[in-house]
Amino acid sequence: MNIKITGTGSYIPMTLEKNEDFNNHQFLNADGSTINSPNEVIVEKFKAITGIAERRYAKPELNNSDLAFFAAEKAIADAKINAEELDYIILAHNFGDIKSNTIQSDAVPSLAARVKHRLKIKNPKCVAYDVLFGCPGWNEGVIQAHAFIKAGIAKKCLVVGAETLSRVIDKHDRDSMIYSDGAGAVVIEETSEEGGIIAHESASYTYEEIDYLFFGGSYNPSLDQDVKYIKMYGRKIYEFALKHVPDAMKSCLDNSGLAITDVKKILIHQANEKMDEAIVKRFYKLYNMKVPEGIMPMSIYKLGNSSVATIPTLLDLVKNNKIKDQSIEKGDVIIFASVGAGMNINAIVYKY
Amino acid sequence: MNIKITGTGSYIPMTLEKNEDFNNHQFLNADGSTINSPNEVIVEKFKAITGIAERRYAKPELNNSDLAFFAAEKAIADAKINAEELDYIILAHNFGDIKSNTIQSDAVPSLAARVKHRLKIKNPKCVAYDVLFGCPGWNEGVIQAHAFIKAGIAKKCLVVGAETLSRVIDKHDRDSMIYSDGAGAVVIEETSEEGGIIAHESASYTYEEIDYLFFGGSYNPSLDQDVKYIKMYGRKIYEFALKHVPDAMKSCLDNSGLAITDVKKILIHQANEKMDEAIVKRFYKLYNMKVPEGIMPMSIYKLGNSSVATIPTLLDLVKNNKIKDQSIEKGDVIIFASVGAGMNINAIVYKY
Repeated sequence: MNIKITGTGSYIPMTLEKNEDFNNHQFLNADGSTINSPNEVIVEKFKAITGIAERRYAKPELNNSDLAFFAAEKAIADAKINAEELDYIILAHNFGDIKSNTIQSDAVPSLAARVKHRLKIKNPKCVAYDVLFGCPGWNEGVIQAHAFIKAGIAKKCLVVGAETLSRVIDKHDRDSMIYSDGAGAVVIEETSEEGGIIAHESASYTYEEIDYLFFGGSYNPSLDQDVKYIKMYGRKIYEFALKHVPDAMKSCLDNSGLAITDVKKILIHQANEKMDEAIVKRFYKLYNMKVPEGIMPMSIYKLGNSSVATIPTLLDLVKNNKIKDQSIEKGDVIIFASVGAGMNINAIVYKY
Repeated sequence: MNIKITGTGSYIPMTLEKNEDFNNHQFLNADGSTINSPNEVIVEKFKAITGIAERRYAKPELNNSDLAFFAAEKAIADAKINAEELDYIILAHNFGDIKSNTIQSDAVPSLAARVKHRLKIKNPKCVAYDVLFGCPGWNEGVIQAHAFIKAGIAKKCLVVGAETLSRVIDKHDRDSMIYSDGAGAVVIEETSEEGGIIAHESASYTYEEIDYLFFGGSYNPSLDQDVKYIKMYGRKIYEFALKHVPDAMKSCLDNSGLAITDVKKILIHQANEKMDEAIVKRFYKLYNMKVPEGIMPMSIYKLGNSSVATIPTLLDLVKNNKIKDQSIEKGDVIIFASVGAGMNINAIVYKY
């Protein structure tokens, strides 16, 4: 028995927010002090490091679960299954539904339940739940679906990653330029076909790293400090990721029994282009190799960091030849890798 | 190989809120109109239906993840394991951490990560994530732990249910008297001992039932309607639960291969004493039996409805002989059953 992705779908939100749209923001340092550079310089520097030129935000009338539903609908259509056959809907997010211009997260009922409702699925045995695991939540949902199929309690699962980070950003924080909205989904099935999920690896580093990514007050001290926004210690995350993600990828690949030369694509969580390049470089260095050309398809330039949505969205885009010079062929070995709040890391070795 | 609960723990919050503490609340109907009964009558009627006389609220300086940590610490001590051996920390909740007198949910990093941090666990292979599945979330966490152990990716899991509903109640809603705070936890292990989890069953009813429990505006129309509170259609939930929970329990018991006469205890989610009694009555009626004396230990009288925390807390209390005339003996068959937002239902047949 193999366990394979049989359908993919993604939703790219409609509002385009370009880097120059941040030119009139009042950016501040973490201590509230003024930054002594014009915004144009800040934005240019930001782009040089992260690779982000533009990002997408959900229209105000849409919520996170709407984005999730759009992606889910496409993945189910792509898998050519009847949605009623799904045993699980697993939805990864971190902030729930946040109505535009409000600050409360809403996850009651769960976003998975909302998606199931909108998919008009009647079968009560289709179990819908949400998983919170930072940015690696979608990968972790895939690992959970895999476990349920292996344990014999599921045959078909829908795994969605959806987030509207535009609703938790502090406009006074330069990091606000990183975050975006999006949703991606896959159908995972038990199959007699060759390939599928070969190995996986997860880790939670919470001893020292617990607050590298957190929900905190605005950098503008005159704003209510009880209103929280997504915040991070970028430098610490960079160092942490570089130290641990390559090792997790290697451990996962070695467990899969495949060789480094078998790997055709690395689909990595996209928070920062330079960081991702450094991770992949160090990963190959563990095998005394240089990074092969075109191994890491990227969408961060246009889509920013949409948290749990980056990897399934990227997979859907590459599969549909929507990333320049990128494609996936049957039999290709792919590594999915992610890092985020927790701090959590995971990796999956997958044969397409 | 069997999969058993090897340790339990719970945390009962310190602030005692009695029914008479609601005597000066201004209760309103859902449409904002005044209720034409004195509060004393409302409160008395409430007690007659729900069985709730008092409830516990967390101290203002504590958050949900603190409660979860206290319960987790006790469960680990009770299981006599080294916390570093845990493969998973699964934490069920629905509203995250909500700081006292604020309205935002905070689940970044996940509450499971926060608990792992406070437990000082260094092992990164201990994977910490949160699951959102309404009130049945703790049961579902147990089912997920069971699947991970069966799939061979875990041997020891900590499953916690924790909620601070006191921070999402609308003081103008009579239902606010139902909700309380609390946390319960168990350690689940692969073991060669007899017994453990024999069967489980889960269902999500989202087609018509999606909004029976939801996050909505205050009944006081003069308050900001964008500020949300836990809300429910009590009558609909009652009818739904009575229709579906007994069937799920029966299906689970029949799948376990055990007979109704083997069942020694039913530990059911406690939202309403009368509803629970009606569910259990209907369950036994499916077997043409009367409800055996003392089959359903209750703590709702003193603890109210603490959502995901009710069942693990009750298990811990019964195990430690803290519920009058109740105890569990080795070999006893227990049914865990729950119903809540989604609407979700689950049941587990367990041999102690």
